[in-house]
Amino acid sequence: MGLVVQKFGGTSLADLDHIRRVAERVAAAREKWDQAIVVVSAMAGETDNFLQMAESLSESPAGREVDLLLASGERITSALLAIALDGLGVKAISLTGSQAGIMTEGAHTRARVRKIQPKRIRRELEEGRVVIAAGFQGVDEFNEEQTLGRGGSDLTAVALAAALEADLCEIYTDVEGVFTADPRIEPRARLLERISYDEMMELASLGTKVLQSRSVDLAAKYKLKLVVRSSFDEGEGTLITPEQPGFEAPAVTGVSCDKKQSKLTAQGVADHPGIAATLFGTLAEKSIVVDIIVQNVSADGLTDISITVNRDTADEAERIMKETHASFAAREISRDDNVAKVSIVGIGMKSQAGVASRTFAALARDRINIMMISTSEISISVIVREDQADDAVRALHREFMA
Amino acid sequence: MGLVVQKFGGTSLADLDHIRRVAERVAAAREKWDQAIVVVSAMAGETDNFLQMAESLSESPAGREVDLLLASGERITSALLAIALDGLGVKAISLTGSQAGIMTEGAHTRARVRKIQPKRIRRELEEGRVVIAAGFQGVDEFNEEQTLGRGGSDLTAVALAAALEADLCEIYTDVEGVFTADPRIEPRARLLERISYDEMMELASLGTKVLQSRSVDLAAKYKLKLVVRSSFDEGEGTLITPEQPGFEAPAVTGVSCDKKQSKLTAQGVADHPGIAATLFGTLAEKSIVVDIIVQNVSADGLTDISITVNRDTADEAERIMKETHASFAAREISRDDNVAKVSIVGIGMKSQAGVASRTFAALARDRINIMMISTSEISISVIVREDQADDAVRALHREFMA
Repeated sequence: MGLVVQKFGGTSLADLDHIRRVAERVAAAREKWDQAIVVVSAMAGETDNFLQMAESLSESPAGREVDLLLASGERITSALLAIALDGLGVKAISLTGSQAGIMTEGAHTRARVRKIQPKRIRRELEEGRVVIAAGFQGVDEFNEEQTLGRGGSDLTAVALAAALEADLCEIYTDVEGVFTADPRIEPRARLLERISYDEMMELASLGTKVLQSRSVDLAAKYKLKLVVRSSFDEGEGTLITPEQPGFEAPAVTGVSCDKKQSKLTAQGVADHPGIAATLFGTLAEKSIVVDIIVQNVSADGLTDISITVNRDTADEAERIMKETHASFAAREISRDDNVAKVSIVGIGMKSQAGVASRTFAALARDRINIMMISTSEISISVIVREDQADDAVRALHREFMA
Repeated sequence: MGLVVQKFGGTSLADLDHIRRVAERVAAAREKWDQAIVVVSAMAGETDNFLQMAESLSESPAGREVDLLLASGERITSALLAIALDGLGVKAISLTGSQAGIMTEGAHTRARVRKIQPKRIRRELEEGRVVIAAGFQGVDEFNEEQTLGRGGSDLTAVALAAALEADLCEIYTDVEGVFTADPRIEPRARLLERISYDEMMELASLGTKVLQSRSVDLAAKYKLKLVVRSSFDEGEGTLITPEQPGFEAPAVTGVSCDKKQSKLTAQGVADHPGIAATLFGTLAEKSIVVDIIVQNVSADGLTDISITVNRDTADEAERIMKETHASFAAREISRDDNVAKVSIVGIGMKSQAGVASRTFAALARDRINIMMISTSEISISVIVREDQADDAVRALHREFMA
């Protein structure tokens, strides 16, 4: 019955025993489906290991070389999985990003998929082989290897599923699916049977790690049937689908938490036009994504501008702000790493009033101070102290999901 | 002053500290030479590690998948070395077998270099970069990755040096150069300042591991200036050159020892024509290299045929001999793994009589029993018991090199 694309993450391929179990799982799927493509990540920890090695050899290793290094991880697991399948008597072939026709463009270590040339994959599928594609990588027009950034193997799976018009794309991971909140923080969190693309995208971009947001975006574009499920049990997982018309949606579908945030504040900035443009222009040039922005106008004509950025980029953002300090005449640049972003997401918010006030009341009840607020059509995010983030998740889950 | 090709083996790249030291060495060479190409092996132990993984997942892993797996090792070290050079401020770029234009053909895991397409390498050299090429690998005409077999990185280095008309090819390894015998067996062994291609080839094929024999063959063909030296000290190493005319060469240049031998004997074979052809035909079909052959005719018209093979292929050779047992009517197939091959090599043998008798006398004096004998124009090899092999090396070294 058609073509399935299955993606297995690094924890599912952590060692030879895990690889054997994945092979058994793929062999079982092969019985059920006419054709199967399997996308693999590197073994758990391998990518970080490579990055550490590169950083110990050079302060700023060239992206090109880092990509060549990182891409090895998925090549290794893809070959091992093909060998394991062969050991089970299942015809399989592993393909590198280049062989799988994954053409990329853009910057090294965060390339984009330009197009898929599925000729070789098609041929191998027609010859009855399971195709194991190395995730996270492709080649640009100059035959240079590139990687797709964190979570890039999800993107490989969705892109291949879209290009080959797969009937189903299954993302196998180390959790049972998408929960109403992180079960490690809120034990009463429930597994969602289904969730809309929009909600999933919002959750993913707000810190829910189970799926990469670019992948959800691409799946939505091609209306791909996408499932997130565990490689360690037989659960059905969570189906990500177009928005369901009809019944009234709940106000909130899930609570998300991102603890990797830093808050940077430029204090005592002269409040005249162009200040923000100078600052954000410079940050954008360095590809630093500014998340939440709050500007307070004070009585004496001076203003404070606070921004949050991903903690990985906080050092560089701080450096840039200090360098451009003079041009926007700030009194001081301060930094706070003890911050986290807690968000609620739900399509129901579009049509239900009072969600914001319930959010703030629930947090106030548990004496959680809100430092910054940001909203979209289907989400509300608050910045709180990192050591209160778990409490905030529980308060919001109790308020909306109980 | 021209172009140098340097090759570093796995023990020279065993960890990040070693890689840093190799980078320093390459940086120093970069001062001296106009252009430099560096060929790297995988980190010590990595190739065996990959092979073990493959064999634990499948009884007979497909060569294609094994190649993809193995080739990762050199890609990793090449990227790391390029990053380390960059960290030292030396412009460098790592190239995969495919990017380096190394085109292969033949069977997986033991492919041959078909040709070198040096366009990309030339361009990178012209732009002032040190080119780090992943050794041991190339791609065939279908963009399939292939590896060149044990010691294949030596071959990569020599092939690139030949194709780019390098002025010097340096093989950096964990020993000081080529010795008159293995110094771990014979402490009085001397480092050779120079040795002829022919002698080196003979030594390499008879068990001296310092250089792969195919590489020497290729270097001889292109009259390449080839040096073997240590990456751990500043010694000059051994220069491998065309045969030097003039002064009389010593009878023996070096003593070699190969302990990875097995002896297989078909006993009581009917002594009529075609027997040997049947047996050796079948072995050759399976790519098993038969080394020494001895046939004894006995009184009753029956004969014993003994062969030696590399111990890695002994299981398969034994299986084949037992299967074809009936067709050549052997009474029994016996196997002996307690054997080793000890050889003396020297161009001087061509013109000096009495080398063979001195060999046998020296071994007899130390009560070392000779099981089989094989000779070429410039070598004499004997099969002895493995537990007497070291004694045999010392006896022959004392006889010819003292």
